[in-house]
Amino acid sequence: MLIQRVALLYKKMAAIVLVKNAAQVTTRQSFISNLKGLSKSGECHSSRYSRITLPLTTWSSRTAGVRFTSQGTVGRSAAGGRSSRRGVLALSGAAVISAAAAVVGFVANVNHFQRAEMATLGRKGEMCTRMEMLIMDTQAEFCKALQEVDGGTFKVDRWERTEGGGGISCVMQDGKVFEKAGVNVSVVFGNLTEEAARQMKSRGKVLKGKDGKLPFCAMGVSSVIHPKNPHIPTVHFNYRYFEIEEEDGRKQWWFGGGTDLTPVYVNKEDAFHFHNTLKEACDKHHPQYYPDFKKWCDRYFYVRHRGETRGIGGIFFDDLDGPSQEEAFGFVKSCARTVVPCYLPIVYKHLDDAFTDQEKDWQQVRRGRYVEFNLVYDRGVKFGLATPGSRIESILMSLPLTARWEYMHEPAHGTREAEMLEVLRNPKEWL
Amino acid sequence: MLIQRVALLYKKMAAIVLVKNAAQVTTRQSFISNLKGLSKSGECHSSRYSRITLPLTTWSSRTAGVRFTSQGTVGRSAAGGRSSRRGVLALSGAAVISAAAAVVGFVANVNHFQRAEMATLGRKGEMCTRMEMLIMDTQAEFCKALQEVDGGTFKVDRWERTEGGGGISCVMQDGKVFEKAGVNVSVVFGNLTEEAARQMKSRGKVLKGKDGKLPFCAMGVSSVIHPKNPHIPTVHFNYRYFEIEEEDGRKQWWFGGGTDLTPVYVNKEDAFHFHNTLKEACDKHHPQYYPDFKKWCDRYFYVRHRGETRGIGGIFFDDLDGPSQEEAFGFVKSCARTVVPCYLPIVYKHLDDAFTDQEKDWQQVRRGRYVEFNLVYDRGVKFGLATPGSRIESILMSLPLTARWEYMHEPAHGTREAEMLEVLRNPKEWL
Repeated sequence: MLIQRVALLYKKMAAIVLVKNAAQVTTRQSFISNLKGLSKSGECHSSRYSRITLPLTTWSSRTAGVRFTSQGTVGRSAAGGRSSRRGVLALSGAAVISAAAAVVGFVANVNHFQRAEMATLGRKGEMCTRMEMLIMDTQAEFCKALQEVDGGTFKVDRWERTEGGGGISCVMQDGKVFEKAGVNVSVVFGNLTEEAARQMKSRGKVLKGKDGKLPFCAMGVSSVIHPKNPHIPTVHFNYRYFEIEEEDGRKQWWFGGGTDLTPVYVNKEDAFHFHNTLKEACDKHHPQYYPDFKKWCDRYFYVRHRGETRGIGGIFFDDLDGPSQEEAFGFVKSCARTVVPCYLPIVYKHLDDAFTDQEKDWQQVRRGRYVEFNLVYDRGVKFGLATPGSRIESILMSLPLTARWEYMHEPAHGTREAEMLEVLRNPKEWL
Repeated sequence: MLIQRVALLYKKMAAIVLVKNAAQVTTRQSFISNLKGLSKSGECHSSRYSRITLPLTTWSSRTAGVRFTSQGTVGRSAAGGRSSRRGVLALSGAAVISAAAAVVGFVANVNHFQRAEMATLGRKGEMCTRMEMLIMDTQAEFCKALQEVDGGTFKVDRWERTEGGGGISCVMQDGKVFEKAGVNVSVVFGNLTEEAARQMKSRGKVLKGKDGKLPFCAMGVSSVIHPKNPHIPTVHFNYRYFEIEEEDGRKQWWFGGGTDLTPVYVNKEDAFHFHNTLKEACDKHHPQYYPDFKKWCDRYFYVRHRGETRGIGGIFFDDLDGPSQEEAFGFVKSCARTVVPCYLPIVYKHLDDAFTDQEKDWQQVRRGRYVEFNLVYDRGVKFGLATPGSRIESILMSLPLTARWEYMHEPAHGTREAEMLEVLRNPKEWL
């Protein structure tokens, strides 16, 4: 299927339109191809990356004028293209450029018709396109919600990967509510070695490549939010899609993802709300998803050398390649849509909670454990750090702004700190 | 060779004596066997470890009364043993228990004659014993020097490893000069899988075990010192000895180690002093040691994903199994003896340097990189975290008390921070 995507940024106007249309462009022109073709206009941050500084890197999100519609409101389209029902993402805001718009804005402002032929791999997979839209929607929606509660603004970096692909990293640092909030989307493609492909898939399935190489495409949205107040938990989510082409041309695809919470203190009400919201999303798709993926989450986010889970879990899954691609995508979409309702109510609830220096210290110690998990065990981080051309700053934006390691730290019996540790050492059922 | 070690702690008196004598005990009674046999009298910190709280866990080091002699001053020896020239370490202090004494004190106070038969593996290797003495001397000497400059006291934990072995960890946290100072000795033994043995040796030599298992003994002293003042660099050193017994009963042995400096700002004078002190120690043994091990150090302490070395290097070597065991040990001893002269003059020099908040922030960012190296690349840490029964707190005491991760941190051109980065990205010759 031929897909055309038109992205227009009306810099000081209301309508931000991203249109996919089957009319004019002969190769799928995706986010990826836009990235590939974009000229390096920005400040250079390293030899590998160009950071493009757009006029809209600070967002004003205090607007209700952001609409996600399935029917495009095409403004001035360079293509003059029709909008098609599927694949049209239209965002409009009355007088202010929205958070979502600012993200989408990175994809716009490009003479992409000249670039359309450049989608080097000619990946035409419909699912890739739909997943790209989902991860960008999720990023925009979440960033907007976080800005509303913090009052601060995200720094937005659009980056390219020399080896293929790129992404958009949104980071808010040292805000009023958030110590560090990172929301990242990336689309990466190239060739994997068989060994790397095996590591990529958690079940370790052996994939046969042509001359040992496997063309792949990976995309995902991921986020870690570290608040300042120790009574507001850290949240993490990640939803991703992989496609690998084997020697015989067949494609292996699968989804992965999850959302999990890392509080500094136990709050049963918060834990119930968080897990219940996830369960409701899961139950729409399969009654076993929540119980299975809850267990998987506890197993995955386990700091083995400490004998502790990273937090109170949530859901985690990988290698989801059924029951059908459509249904798997539907499930991932439901999960992605629960991120805001899972987390934001908890943030608002504890926004003004008072805290002591001791509570802040305990938060910092827990932050240290978070760093330990992410650097020692997290498969995504390990894969990222080992992949040539990865954008390190986007991978490591999950690390907190500050962390602490106290030798032999052990909370006194009966304290709220000890209560937290007890839960981390013995994961609970919250529902 | 039969060795007897008598250790007496006169709790409120002056003389602390540790004697090794060939006279009375039929099995080598080492540090290890003392550890094995010691009853668990201390507060329990985890299910695996017992922490023994001695009356002397705080040290007063402001005394010149610590003497290391090669001729023992035997006080009241339970064994009434003769002192022999080699293997006698006598420490005496007039009225105060010294830092060294407190360390040695952990080995004392044990009815070790009852334990003498318990050296389970019956390891009688002379080199093991001599290396044990060297690492304990090094720990004592360095702790004493650090306490003198800080005025604070080390917390001393003696710990056992259920699977075999144990150690003594000395940690000073949030002192006047040092944010975190850790000096650790450990002696670990047991069986390695062939895979683990291969990882242990950096050249990856294949070792053949009996039924795939290789009895091993590993011991070492290691230390990381993170000062508060950003003008005082972090130092790290580690000297270690391994012995592995192959299927045919032959022993493979090798030494490893190194000392390296991680400043927050470039100071050429400090760098010269540090490297020159190391070079002088190396040159006594082989003219190629310094140049070769300096390069090895730059290669080893490399944070690949950042494209930076951890610090300005020093020396690093591994798998040193020649020219003879005696000469290799001699070299390691020279290195261990340079730790204090390498580092302490730099500490004293910058003790009262003023610093700004910005300099402190840069230090914290560099601390973050230190954590990245240690958790992602350091072979010792990786091996430790993956080894069942390792004492995690002793492995991770190398992490700083506090660290910081700023997204896209890049110092402005021409600043002293940029000067430091430039050196880390392009390692220099300092001599």
